[in-house]
Amino acid sequence: MGMVGGGRGAFIGGVHRMAAALDGQIELVCGAFSSDPAKSRASGSDLFLPPERSYGSFEEMIKTEKTLPATQRMDFISIVTPNHAHFGPAKMALENGFHVVCDKPLCFSMEEALELEQLVRDTGLLFALTHNYTGYPMVKQARAMVRNGELGKIRKVVVEYPQGWLATRVEESGQKQAGWRTDPKKSGIAGCMGDIGTHAENLAEYITGLQIKELCADLTTFVEGRLLDDDGNVLLRFDNGAKGILHASQISVGEENNLNIRVYGEKGGLEWRQMEPNTLLAKWMDKPVQVIRTGVGALSPEAQAHTRIPAGHPEGYLEAFANIYRNFAHCLQARLENEDPDPVYQDFPTVSDGVRGMVFIDKVVASSQAGAAWIGL
Amino acid sequence: MGMVGGGRGAFIGGVHRMAAALDGQIELVCGAFSSDPAKSRASGSDLFLPPERSYGSFEEMIKTEKTLPATQRMDFISIVTPNHAHFGPAKMALENGFHVVCDKPLCFSMEEALELEQLVRDTGLLFALTHNYTGYPMVKQARAMVRNGELGKIRKVVVEYPQGWLATRVEESGQKQAGWRTDPKKSGIAGCMGDIGTHAENLAEYITGLQIKELCADLTTFVEGRLLDDDGNVLLRFDNGAKGILHASQISVGEENNLNIRVYGEKGGLEWRQMEPNTLLAKWMDKPVQVIRTGVGALSPEAQAHTRIPAGHPEGYLEAFANIYRNFAHCLQARLENEDPDPVYQDFPTVSDGVRGMVFIDKVVASSQAGAAWIGL
Amino acid sequence: MGMVGGGRGAFIGGVHRMAAALDGQIELVCGAFSSDPAKSRASGSDLFLPPERSYGSFEEMIKTEKTLPATQRMDFISIVTPNHAHFGPAKMALENGFHVVCDKPLCFSMEEALELEQLVRDTGLLFALTHNYTGYPMVKQARAMVRNGELGKIRKVVVEYPQGWLATRVEESGQKQAGWRTDPKKSGIAGCMGDIGTHAENLAEYITGLQIKELCADLTTFVEGRLLDDDGNVLLRFDNGAKGILHASQISVGEENNLNIRVYGEKGGLEWRQMEPNTLLAKWMDKPVQVIRTGVGALSPEAQAHTRIPAGHPEGYLEAFANIYRNFAHCLQARLENEDPDPVYQDFPTVSDGVRGMVFIDKVVASSQAGAAWIGL
Amino acid sequence: MGMVGGGRGAFIGGVHRMAAALDGQIELVCGAFSSDPAKSRASGSDLFLPPERSYGSFEEMIKTEKTLPATQRMDFISIVTPNHAHFGPAKMALENGFHVVCDKPLCFSMEEALELEQLVRDTGLLFALTHNYTGYPMVKQARAMVRNGELGKIRKVVVEYPQGWLATRVEESGQKQAGWRTDPKKSGIAGCMGDIGTHAENLAEYITGLQIKELCADLTTFVEGRLLDDDGNVLLRFDNGAKGILHASQISVGEENNLNIRVYGEKGGLEWRQMEPNTLLAKWMDKPVQVIRTGVGALSPEAQAHTRIPAGHPEGYLEAFANIYRNFAHCLQARLENEDPDPVYQDFPTVSDGVRGMVFIDKVVASSQAGAAWIGL
Repeated sequence: MGMVGGGRGAFIGGVHRMAAALDGQIELVCGAFSSDPAKSRASGSDLFLPPERSYGSFEEMIKTEKTLPATQRMDFISIVTPNHAHFGPAKMALENGFHVVCDKPLCFSMEEALELEQLVRDTGLLFALTHNYTGYPMVKQARAMVRNGELGKIRKVVVEYPQGWLATRVEESGQKQAGWRTDPKKSGIAGCMGDIGTHAENLAEYITGLQIKELCADLTTFVEGRLLDDDGNVLLRFDNGAKGILHASQISVGEENNLNIRVYGEKGGLEWRQMEPNTLLAKWMDKPVQVIRTGVGALSPEAQAHTRIPAGHPEGYLEAFANIYRNFAHCLQARLENEDPDPVYQDFPTVSDGVRGMVFIDKVVASSQAGAAWIGL
Repeated sequence: MGMVGGGRGAFIGGVHRMAAALDGQIELVCGAFSSDPAKSRASGSDLFLPPERSYGSFEEMIKTEKTLPATQRMDFISIVTPNHAHFGPAKMALENGFHVVCDKPLCFSMEEALELEQLVRDTGLLFALTHNYTGYPMVKQARAMVRNGELGKIRKVVVEYPQGWLATRVEESGQKQAGWRTDPKKSGIAGCMGDIGTHAENLAEYITGLQIKELCADLTTFVEGRLLDDDGNVLLRFDNGAKGILHASQISVGEENNLNIRVYGEKGGLEWRQMEPNTLLAKWMDKPVQVIRTGVGALSPEAQAHTRIPAGHPEGYLEAFANIYRNFAHCLQARLENEDPDPVYQDFPTVSDGVRGMVFIDKVVASSQAGAAWIGL
Repeated sequence: MGMVGGGRGAFIGGVHRMAAALDGQIELVCGAFSSDPAKSRASGSDLFLPPERSYGSFEEMIKTEKTLPATQRMDFISIVTPNHAHFGPAKMALENGFHVVCDKPLCFSMEEALELEQLVRDTGLLFALTHNYTGYPMVKQARAMVRNGELGKIRKVVVEYPQGWLATRVEESGQKQAGWRTDPKKSGIAGCMGDIGTHAENLAEYITGLQIKELCADLTTFVEGRLLDDDGNVLLRFDNGAKGILHASQISVGEENNLNIRVYGEKGGLEWRQMEPNTLLAKWMDKPVQVIRTGVGALSPEAQAHTRIPAGHPEGYLEAFANIYRNFAHCLQARLENEDPDPVYQDFPTVSDGVRGMVFIDKVVASSQAGAAWIGL
Repeated sequence: MGMVGGGRGAFIGGVHRMAAALDGQIELVCGAFSSDPAKSRASGSDLFLPPERSYGSFEEMIKTEKTLPATQRMDFISIVTPNHAHFGPAKMALENGFHVVCDKPLCFSMEEALELEQLVRDTGLLFALTHNYTGYPMVKQARAMVRNGELGKIRKVVVEYPQGWLATRVEESGQKQAGWRTDPKKSGIAGCMGDIGTHAENLAEYITGLQIKELCADLTTFVEGRLLDDDGNVLLRFDNGAKGILHASQISVGEENNLNIRVYGEKGGLEWRQMEPNTLLAKWMDKPVQVIRTGVGALSPEAQAHTRIPAGHPEGYLEAFANIYRNFAHCLQARLENEDPDPVYQDFPTVSDGVRGMVFIDKVVASSQAGAAWIGL
């Protein structure tokens, strides 16, 4: 793995590295950690990389690595930069035969998104998007239960993603994470809805297997002087007739990272909360709620395959994130060995999920600008 | 107190009687429990009433009671019939000098609602509407905290009221409660939104002190053959610029009576859940969430005045309901004794709250019929 | 009902009155609310009693009421005084043909306890002890599940009753509730263990149907200057070989009234917490925990018969307390009408449960005084 | 790092490897994964190790690695075998100049424990025992709060460790984990109390800074035919006069891995539960409970230094385990570079904590065999 971005002081770069390291299947062999070559080398040195494989730019990295012998060069790149800097390295990597892992949202604009999707299709290379929340075993259990018809036809979906960390103008304080996320030049046309709203959209579609068909979005910028939305409330209509609500917020004071979802079908309901990820509540008609737990009882093969340790030993965010990397590595290795990947591991968000997220961003912004009018996807 | 409705087999009538009895301030002295005189007498006998004060109709009750000496006759009537049968007894009681307690929603139609409001204004009589959820001490604590500015300017409100008991067509089974609630001739133009959506609307406005200015409602009838909505998702805009979401449902399988609300201001947030009503979560910026509890520490005078027993001895639905009756009785007694009521007890939902609820019903139905368009209140 | 104790400023008297009033089956007709006749009359007047039935002593009340016609006089007395003042009125009431409801613990000493038990046996009168926590529907559900063998043979019981309100010497501040509870002349030989430890003992034996056979108790007085225990840790051995832990505390800062119990058998486990009383967790081998809830699904007849309102409408402490009164009233009425009571309502703590509690107090004190040695019951 | 044990099919070996890998500070360079050389090589190959560094025995590994150049040979060994196989490799490693990480409990017997402690003292080498639960940031926060006096003098400690997985005789089914844990030849004189009771003891002493002075233990073997205890209830007395309860169980059906602790001082209380490890409840007199959370607000430096990702991104068991390894690695690196370790990272369980655990095992068994008599530590 060669990393793009994620130098000293970054947040998500470290997450990607821990996630990649956890299962001992992936080795960080090089990186372009910063556009400043000295900083990149310093970051590389922190990570025990030799100076010659800490590059000053992704272009240099891709070019140089390509010249190394196959046993030595990186197999794929991992892009952990802000949104506006996803497209460049992704495109160049694909064009040079490297597989790609990329942070979400896919990129800066719809045009970029469609071009990347086409490139992946054309090259046949692997592309994983780190919508990491679908890596949780209980999310996979939920998806399996819906698919098996245990809930009956789905009628209603409520998905929420409240955070509170941008309730004041922290981007003025020099906080790096807040800085780029609230900057339309780096983040794109959406703030909150792009950063976390897309996670909610992805989670809802992943679990239910449904697609949002129409939406009506009321986005707001509550913090004065901010240029992008910091809160959004969205009504949803799904392709099977189900209705839904999606709301995401970065001004909900006191909320940490409270992604959660409830799905109701004709026969049963499900509730999952990211901050207690090893629990899935199953709700039934005239029967007690069941507390489905990671590692307990007859879970779906998908849930079991994405759990590392026994019940009651909580796995968290990094483990779910690592499931994306582990599955990607599994499929990559199968590819390298000309074997079929195990279907249970052939499960990570793809470039098309990324395009779907970009469409979602596009449409919520358009709907909101039209006074929160209904709009088709 | 004289009761209209609430004979054998009814649900809410018994609730009203327990609520009225709890504090020993109100005595049930007569009733028109059923339109069948024999059934009414049988119900009265269950309640230790003499046969001559178990009337065969509210007309008879009001007429007869009016002739009794003041020390003996009922002081007010309590109306616990289905929606379509609120207006008649309420109007006649007011016209004959009796105060009124009435179940929600106020009545069947906007015209009735406005006429009742005018009558209350003209007669100067007391009128309480049992939006009982505002009787909980932690709801009063929440309202006090908002009013005191502890949360700062309110930005976002999320209020939910999911139930699951109408997920199938139980009204076909002869279940009385389901029967009239799903019958447009008894319930009015709305099903779920009238029955429980109005509670959510009332709770949100009571706690925040704000008014909904515009809404966009997507109502659905999921159960085939049903005539009224059984689910509704609503976007809200409040008069101070705050945004909100309100959703209510009777097809959310496995949900009991899960009314809950979250309110976020510039400085803090609050979360309250009816099914654990003695807990109020207060959320702050960069500080631990506080678990505010009935009976613990420095609560608002309003919260304290509506709590009967020490911390950790849970009070529930009936106690909150009884707070409406206790406050009504307090104000009635003050009136009878020509005294000023204690302001802390001068707190129960009025006919105007009822009109507000009827406007809400009117507008969500209109919005939904217009394809979930925005509409002003 | 005639009440002994419970004048202005008392806590538990008001609880008894609300509990008795809730279901409209019991009428307070007289009281000896205070040993000061003027105060008793004032309290009676608050409760709408005529002055002549607000007595200056229980002796006067019992003597006078006995002379009234049967249709008019009280049927039973309710004793809500501190422990040392239970025996006198209970004995006199029984000797004069009145049934008795008495607060717990039964009385001041073992001798008194045994004499009362004998008197009840001799007179054949009804005697209810308000171990109110067994009035909760989910406690009755737990008991039914154990009795039906759903858990298999019981192996382990953990019952806890932590409170924090006596963590400092509040009895010095004039707080009445703290005052008598920490005074050996009024409370008896135990403080915390008598006041709340007996509730824990009663709950454990009620749910499991087992009896404590041996115990080893380490009682402590943490607050300097206090004369009775304010904390106690007890190991238990039950008559079927099960083992257990009981601890009660009034110095566990920040705990409200956190009575809770866990019971584990060969096949399943149960967990119930008084502060969320409508929930009972059922735990199984290799299967999801079930959240059993008041009003949901196929509950035992006992649980159903002690629930008043539908699922999700929380019932609390007063409703559980009222179940004791309602069942007592049911049995009393059956007796007055020479009928057999419904077995499902023939369920309230008796004088023998009270004796059992007194034995428990005796033994934990004896064990602790012997250096926390094992002692048989 | 060279690993002893942890071949295919083992549980805790994989945990140690993930924990060691997470932060990119430790590289697995060799192992003696099995006493069968072929199996060891197969396991090594799974882990991308060259065959020559997958040894057939720990003796071979230690001998051979010692001959390698310093830049290449392992720096320390990690022992992940059953209890009876800790002493051998630990002793030999220390005698040959290798630092040691060892799973708990320290070893098989008191004699072994004392010899190891002496060896560590004599060699001056680093020795970490993986009492991993003390690696959680909220445990460190709790410890800091006690040490800072925020709770006042500690009065009461309740520590619990219920599990249910050994409620039936699973060791007969060939389940490896159950097999050795219930075998006195591999586990030592205690079953449940050694396996998990020691974690509870360690947690209580770590957080409170107190030492258990006396105890009274009632151990039971509930499952017929089993040779070691599968449940234990213990009363505790601490060196400062505090009292406590410790119970551990492997027959508490439906419990997963529910280690939890409550600590009460004169001014406040704390509650922590391993299965929701990012939450610490702080309880105060007459004030709301505070929900202290990983990553939120002004936490102790110790809590902050052991957290990797922002609030609301749950870290779990592996991250806590990794904190032990990360701190060990930090101290080892400081040692190699002749620097002082950062005190905040100089925090992992030592051989003396291990001896303390062995004393605990010894005493609970002795107490129980004496009929649950009090015994000093």
